[in-house]
Amino acid sequence: MAGSIFGNIFRVSTFGESHGKAVGVIVDGCPAGISLNEDDVQIYLNRRKPGQSDYSTPRKEADEVEILSGIFEGKTTGTPIAMVVHNTSQRSKDYSDIASYYRPGHADYTFDEKYGFRDYRGGGRSSGRETIARVAAGAVAAKVLKELNIFVNAYTKAIDNVEIDTYNPEEIFKNELFMPDAKAVEKARKVLDERRAKGDSAGGVVECRVNGLMPGVGEPVFDKLDAELAKAIVSIGAVKAFEIGDGINAAKSSGFDNNDFFSMKDGKVSKETNHSGGTLGGISDGSEVLIRAYFKPTPSIFKEQKTVNKSGEDIFVKIKGRHDPIIVPRAVVVVEAMTAITILDLLLRNMSSNIENIKKVYSYECK
Amino acid sequence: MAGSIFGNIFRVSTFGESHGKAVGVIVDGCPAGISLNEDDVQIYLNRRKPGQSDYSTPRKEADEVEILSGIFEGKTTGTPIAMVVHNTSQRSKDYSDIASYYRPGHADYTFDEKYGFRDYRGGGRSSGRETIARVAAGAVAAKVLKELNIFVNAYTKAIDNVEIDTYNPEEIFKNELFMPDAKAVEKARKVLDERRAKGDSAGGVVECRVNGLMPGVGEPVFDKLDAELAKAIVSIGAVKAFEIGDGINAAKSSGFDNNDFFSMKDGKVSKETNHSGGTLGGISDGSEVLIRAYFKPTPSIFKEQKTVNKSGEDIFVKIKGRHDPIIVPRAVVVVEAMTAITILDLLLRNMSSNIENIKKVYSYECK
Amino acid sequence: MAGSIFGNIFRVSTFGESHGKAVGVIVDGCPAGISLNEDDVQIYLNRRKPGQSDYSTPRKEADEVEILSGIFEGKTTGTPIAMVVHNTSQRSKDYSDIASYYRPGHADYTFDEKYGFRDYRGGGRSSGRETIARVAAGAVAAKVLKELNIFVNAYTKAIDNVEIDTYNPEEIFKNELFMPDAKAVEKARKVLDERRAKGDSAGGVVECRVNGLMPGVGEPVFDKLDAELAKAIVSIGAVKAFEIGDGINAAKSSGFDNNDFFSMKDGKVSKETNHSGGTLGGISDGSEVLIRAYFKPTPSIFKEQKTVNKSGEDIFVKIKGRHDPIIVPRAVVVVEAMTAITILDLLLRNMSSNIENIKKVYSYECK
Amino acid sequence: MAGSIFGNIFRVSTFGESHGKAVGVIVDGCPAGISLNEDDVQIYLNRRKPGQSDYSTPRKEADEVEILSGIFEGKTTGTPIAMVVHNTSQRSKDYSDIASYYRPGHADYTFDEKYGFRDYRGGGRSSGRETIARVAAGAVAAKVLKELNIFVNAYTKAIDNVEIDTYNPEEIFKNELFMPDAKAVEKARKVLDERRAKGDSAGGVVECRVNGLMPGVGEPVFDKLDAELAKAIVSIGAVKAFEIGDGINAAKSSGFDNNDFFSMKDGKVSKETNHSGGTLGGISDGSEVLIRAYFKPTPSIFKEQKTVNKSGEDIFVKIKGRHDPIIVPRAVVVVEAMTAITILDLLLRNMSSNIENIKKVYSYECK
Repeated sequence: MAGSIFGNIFRVSTFGESHGKAVGVIVDGCPAGISLNEDDVQIYLNRRKPGQSDYSTPRKEADEVEILSGIFEGKTTGTPIAMVVHNTSQRSKDYSDIASYYRPGHADYTFDEKYGFRDYRGGGRSSGRETIARVAAGAVAAKVLKELNIFVNAYTKAIDNVEIDTYNPEEIFKNELFMPDAKAVEKARKVLDERRAKGDSAGGVVECRVNGLMPGVGEPVFDKLDAELAKAIVSIGAVKAFEIGDGINAAKSSGFDNNDFFSMKDGKVSKETNHSGGTLGGISDGSEVLIRAYFKPTPSIFKEQKTVNKSGEDIFVKIKGRHDPIIVPRAVVVVEAMTAITILDLLLRNMSSNIENIKKVYSYECK
Repeated sequence: MAGSIFGNIFRVSTFGESHGKAVGVIVDGCPAGISLNEDDVQIYLNRRKPGQSDYSTPRKEADEVEILSGIFEGKTTGTPIAMVVHNTSQRSKDYSDIASYYRPGHADYTFDEKYGFRDYRGGGRSSGRETIARVAAGAVAAKVLKELNIFVNAYTKAIDNVEIDTYNPEEIFKNELFMPDAKAVEKARKVLDERRAKGDSAGGVVECRVNGLMPGVGEPVFDKLDAELAKAIVSIGAVKAFEIGDGINAAKSSGFDNNDFFSMKDGKVSKETNHSGGTLGGISDGSEVLIRAYFKPTPSIFKEQKTVNKSGEDIFVKIKGRHDPIIVPRAVVVVEAMTAITILDLLLRNMSSNIENIKKVYSYECK
Repeated sequence: MAGSIFGNIFRVSTFGESHGKAVGVIVDGCPAGISLNEDDVQIYLNRRKPGQSDYSTPRKEADEVEILSGIFEGKTTGTPIAMVVHNTSQRSKDYSDIASYYRPGHADYTFDEKYGFRDYRGGGRSSGRETIARVAAGAVAAKVLKELNIFVNAYTKAIDNVEIDTYNPEEIFKNELFMPDAKAVEKARKVLDERRAKGDSAGGVVECRVNGLMPGVGEPVFDKLDAELAKAIVSIGAVKAFEIGDGINAAKSSGFDNNDFFSMKDGKVSKETNHSGGTLGGISDGSEVLIRAYFKPTPSIFKEQKTVNKSGEDIFVKIKGRHDPIIVPRAVVVVEAMTAITILDLLLRNMSSNIENIKKVYSYECK
Repeated sequence: MAGSIFGNIFRVSTFGESHGKAVGVIVDGCPAGISLNEDDVQIYLNRRKPGQSDYSTPRKEADEVEILSGIFEGKTTGTPIAMVVHNTSQRSKDYSDIASYYRPGHADYTFDEKYGFRDYRGGGRSSGRETIARVAAGAVAAKVLKELNIFVNAYTKAIDNVEIDTYNPEEIFKNELFMPDAKAVEKARKVLDERRAKGDSAGGVVECRVNGLMPGVGEPVFDKLDAELAKAIVSIGAVKAFEIGDGINAAKSSGFDNNDFFSMKDGKVSKETNHSGGTLGGISDGSEVLIRAYFKPTPSIFKEQKTVNKSGEDIFVKIKGRHDPIIVPRAVVVVEAMTAITILDLLLRNMSSNIENIKKVYSYECK
């Protein structure tokens, strides 16, 4: 109820503040029998680790994950998997002054209003470090999905006004911006360099694709595949818009142009186009799931800003600390993680949707 | 788990198919002591009722709501409020042929894949008639919010490429498109007339504003105000994108331009701009909540389309039946309803966020 | 959250007051493909219908169920099944005087404290008529379980101090007390006749057996099979104690006597005894699940009682109306229903407990 | 869904195996503003710590709790509180032989059936060490309840056939069996000494009282105060029965004898007796909540027992390891913890039950 738990069957409980002792997560409901070790998770965490490029905060964190439970002899046991990342580079003194005022674009004011006070060090619970827990859980979800030949891939689609022209998957991990288009990377770097030189920041777009998802996943009415993805993605800090398939452009299309025609292909029902982004009526249709997350620029900027302090005075402030000039590259893996968690959870929920499935599991009649 | 239940404290359970006996909803968790009668709900339902304009399906439905429980002497008792609308105009024969094939842009195929078969009459559970339950529950939520001086208002922002220029609230209920701009209405009608003449359909955008919401509502991390709204809105059939505040445009802004500065106003902390759309860190910040829903064009069109039948043959079809050439005008009240439900639910969830609130309720010390 | 919804995957939402228009239920999450019609449900409802014996309230109610959704061509579609029973015999005037005072042993006082006022007619939401919704949902659950060869049977084990000596299943439906022992029935009737002659009432015990349940059902730690059953059973009005297996007697046993030894039987692991009542570590062990519910005597008695009125005066009252001198016989089917719902829900939850099950459903590799 | 999460608003997620790295818990939904430090939790944990008496396992564990998040400047912040206890005394080799067979009375067999395999070391997730997480969370709940002058107290009511005669609260912490009756303690020790001498074990009863709970707490129908307590208590390993108030004896009482009469006392409605155990219609009635948990004897005994091994052979085994001859004394604080968690959760859920409460929190009109 308090908002730090996500999912229904594959259920993720997170904790931790930016400058507390640790951040972490318990995954409850991971199926037994999945090979899993700390490296599987670390690979994902390394993709969001700070200090890896010119465009991420110089705060150095090892971000090493420790698995405390739920694994035995290299496999998940079906019991809760607890994962912890200790915070090692807390320079809380950088934040002592922000105790007294509300940073524009941050949750300082709203936390105070909600809880009466706040852990102001580095944003506390509203810090981007919270996403470590998402990524760790997402790594586990991805491992399960892989067993079913389902793959989730995210990348940077746009930085500020620089959008990719081509989608070259091999390119993604070759640049620190995680863009699948080498030319776009160069342009984007220029934008970021300029923005940073001014003490300002930029936003961008992350796109995510799910391949291999069987049709039938997603629950009609409220818990549609796209609805659950929308929540998952918009829950990531700084996301201001969510699209599936043609997204906002669908609103300017016509029914005839927007409908995806069906035709038989290799003996299977398939869609000739994918305007819908892989879902019909909130249920996966067997084609690629395609979503987009729009991120606002990092609110922590070094330019002078106007705000108020706790004494109720209008003041001008310059924010200190270590901040990314753009959130997007490090958020790519977060989008991927939230998508994986959501897809897996709905896939598990779908198992009981008809009696035939239930008989398959319990009656062993098809053995 | 199966997706027809929404909300946590203010919890809504819906049922019903387009051509079954009835559609309806149980609202569990509505606070006791709210004046409520069938008229309060009927006013909302009338806004989505079909057959009221040239641009909605000629299917005539009284859509009269009956409240079966939860009210005593004109007030909510705190127990479940069951509301039922009987279907009266089921012309199922219109749909007998769609039993054999999959309509493009519809959930026919995905329902078959998920459940093994489907109630094909009028789309069954995936019909727009499902939204009656949402609107009835939303009417109740709006009544509760009104007690707290919180108001939710939705309207049509765009139809196809016709966008409103001005926001004139009085205009909204003066036209059948629910647009707050009389000039835009005229242009939009032309677009719709043309589209309909071709047997085609159009999409559009609904915008929704929440006024009077106190700061502090929304749960950090996964159940953020914007995340829950995203799910609520994208769960509405035909919605392909969700925005809050500046939405997709925020991704092209700079940190300096996108941050809302704080300043004192009438002794209170206030924001000088509202790029964020009323939320910071997923918690309401006291300013107007502003969201947008992007609807695809009605998939039921009269132009010939390509698809496959259940025998696995490629075929061409022309869909019969009674269909809206645009979903948007009738969806306005659905967006408003889902927003009201979501806001109320989070507002109730926030009550226990700090010990001072709890003491106010239980210790009576401030009496 | 407000308490009228039960279950996780097989989820039941109920509504209705004793003297409102109707009582009913929505079942969300029933698997598609189950044959179901109103007769299947009516058979269960008839077992709790009032006015069928000397020992149940003379209030006459047809208690005819109408299914409003979720069934197509005789089968469940996987979408919500709404079922309604209209109240037809509301003699609210019997209750007009209880508006002014709190009946001992009833929820009048606590509803007033919780909600500020109450629907006092016949107990409103706290009436035993609420159990109609449980029984209707339980009938659906039983139909699903039957497909898997799982059977749930409840009966009266004791009335006041008369306990059954033998368990003769055929006997259960031959007497109005639903006891599997004809001799006990006679003794019990005498007790009830005496009690009623004094304007007083009696309590008793319902026992319930689940046969055919495969091992592995139940979730470790909080959602154990026995824990979920305990909640399900104690949530039935008037239940004051719950036991599984040897129950309270286990507390006086020794580890050696209480442990069930395992041995091989027909090539399968089996237990030589069943002190545990079919569960080990909260997970079904393949043997019969055996539980007991202890019911207090009907609180509505005709003897004069002491209480207070709303003006804060001590008064003496004699309760009018139509009341059962014992709750137990009509509660038998309610215990059976709640057990069926709980077992089915946990059975569906267990489907995703290991990757092999998931592959069976999705990969079709064992076909 | 997988069973390691408990509660709705005050939500507890647990993890950890007996011989894994750690056990622990995240508490999500604890109100902000509660003074809390590790000592508050350690006091509770020390009450269940092993190796403190002749009647508990000689396994030595420091069981020192570390709080990783959710506290700032000595107060809860409203964000998740993660607490970890590292396992330090894992003598896994004691358990290597139990990998090959199923211990009677344990969950070995059912875990294998559910998950396909199990972490067999010390019972893994089904070990009593799992209750550390419950106790830590319960300590937090108790701290919140204390702020509202609500107190939860549990103690040993019976060991085998030795029941307390008197209830002397000061006595409870003076003996290692946590019995409020010094004479009973002596008798109980004798029973335990005898039982242990035979390599056997004993069961018993824990009673728990909640004082200071205001009327109105508990949700009608399924989430009744007693139903939620039943689940909470029966979810504790080894509990085979649950009672509230007169419990099983109520089933042999008459309506007249069992009803609690109301009368005015100090200007307030009060009950003259408390057969109901503090609840009417599943809602607290302002009197003491009184419940009982019946524990089976420790299943780990040193006498030779019959069972089967994984090769499907009948065998005889003698269990090694370090085991308590009785569970009850160490379970007292577990019952207290689960009761505190349940009471607090329902108390928070009740906050939104009527509009007056909501206005108190948000409108500040009573200031």
